[in-house]
Amino acid sequence: MILLLTTHALGGEWEQVIPAAAAVELVHNFSLVHDDIQDKSEKRRGRDTVWVRWGDAQAINTGDAMLAIANLEITSLKLPHDPIIVTNAARILSQATFDLTKGQFLDLANEKTEDATMQDYFRMVEGKTGALFSGCFALGALLAGIKQNEIKRFSALGSKLGLAFQIQDDYLGIWGQKRITGKSIESDLVSKKKTYPANYALENLPEVRAYWQEHSVFSPEDVNWIKGRLESTGVDKITLAAVADYYEESIEEFEDLFTEHESSAELRSMIKNLFFRNR
Amino acid sequence: MILLLTTHALGGEWEQVIPAAAAVELVHNFSLVHDDIQDKSEKRRGRDTVWVRWGDAQAINTGDAMLAIANLEITSLKLPHDPIIVTNAARILSQATFDLTKGQFLDLANEKTEDATMQDYFRMVEGKTGALFSGCFALGALLAGIKQNEIKRFSALGSKLGLAFQIQDDYLGIWGQKRITGKSIESDLVSKKKTYPANYALENLPEVRAYWQEHSVFSPEDVNWIKGRLESTGVDKITLAAVADYYEESIEEFEDLFTEHESSAELRSMIKNLFFRNR
Repeated sequence: MILLLTTHALGGEWEQVIPAAAAVELVHNFSLVHDDIQDKSEKRRGRDTVWVRWGDAQAINTGDAMLAIANLEITSLKLPHDPIIVTNAARILSQATFDLTKGQFLDLANEKTEDATMQDYFRMVEGKTGALFSGCFALGALLAGIKQNEIKRFSALGSKLGLAFQIQDDYLGIWGQKRITGKSIESDLVSKKKTYPANYALENLPEVRAYWQEHSVFSPEDVNWIKGRLESTGVDKITLAAVADYYEESIEEFEDLFTEHESSAELRSMIKNLFFRNR
Repeated sequence: MILLLTTHALGGEWEQVIPAAAAVELVHNFSLVHDDIQDKSEKRRGRDTVWVRWGDAQAINTGDAMLAIANLEITSLKLPHDPIIVTNAARILSQATFDLTKGQFLDLANEKTEDATMQDYFRMVEGKTGALFSGCFALGALLAGIKQNEIKRFSALGSKLGLAFQIQDDYLGIWGQKRITGKSIESDLVSKKKTYPANYALENLPEVRAYWQEHSVFSPEDVNWIKGRLESTGVDKITLAAVADYYEESIEEFEDLFTEHESSAELRSMIKNLFFRNR
């Protein structure tokens, strides 16, 4: 959706770039199918995950097939006047996919260590969430005819927006209502997930850090204790403030890149909707 | 290697197509990393498999990363005079990858049923082994400048050669020496793998079929009994004869396609080596 609206905002033909949008959507969903196996998540969008329904082996293979179809899709773009653009689009998609796996690698590695820092968190999110946001804006711009050397700015905008979105997601993972997120009932704290608020607390609140290190598993009482500490020290508000900062930086850059284009209203409103859902 | 030699045989510049050869190699190895998780295989090429060393989650992600790099590689081909060829090459690679996952789907599904037939076997092998052989010949031909409408024949040659190779592999999985195959010590019969000889016996030897259905797991004695039945009824020789038939059909087609080209000697000798390793 972001891809289509980016192309449209920049004066391109959105109908022509549907294969690229489908490809990004497939890459996103391939990564969710594999993530759910890796995290042993049993529910996604309120339904059984693929591995729960069909077993690990078929679920791995299904994700692989989705990624292959994504790459087939993007090479099916019909842009007869400039075939090099199709190759460049395929490169951007594969680079985003590769960055996604780098982020996932860090995410899995960080789970196993108590030493991960806020810096590790940012590197991880740059891959896990930033890569696809970044790919959407870069592809949307490329396919609207933006020149190769200007595409980097679109890519960077996507990356920053992805960061804002992930930190918001982390906030909702602890303080959101499951009705909205559609994910599992449990707080991210139960799985000791290294989210933004968790990393912030581990770096800045020695008593939370000690508690975290002493408990290899968190009981509901542990979760309540930590949640309470996070709230009384204002980590919930600090997290929301970080979302707001990155969001505002993104919007400034967005206005710079899109302001001269009349058709950017839909994209602007879609981005807003990513952040002002009912909390 | 097949890809490079195909391009060379058809008068192309093999140095120029190395990124495509690397891409195929990466797709092959990505599929092995994921296969080993799916089959719970603990050894590959005499070493611990990726999931044994790093766990399922990182192994899934490593395979994903390899596939992403494969797609990056193929789009890095430098063929300045005809960029559309790079897009076509990327399509062939992704189609081969997709076909591979179709074969793998059937392989996993066939494991769980006693009803799989020889026809299912051929469809499965067409994907699992045929897809990459086929992709190598098709890519090698495309990148040597062969016209789009002639590439189908190269693709079909690869598919047939892949079939011959797989049936040979199936033969070796029961009657080969592990020193040569480098795979696990156990016979394919232990895991009740639906190989060519197994399918042949299930279709043609009622007593083997009954035995197969009665035993959900095979002990070493069961394996010996079945192996003995296969040998006394000549299934080992029938399997080798099938290899020879498909091999010879492939060679005939090979000569048709390559005979006018002087530089096909290396490719011809490489193909021979695939089949006349020491058994």
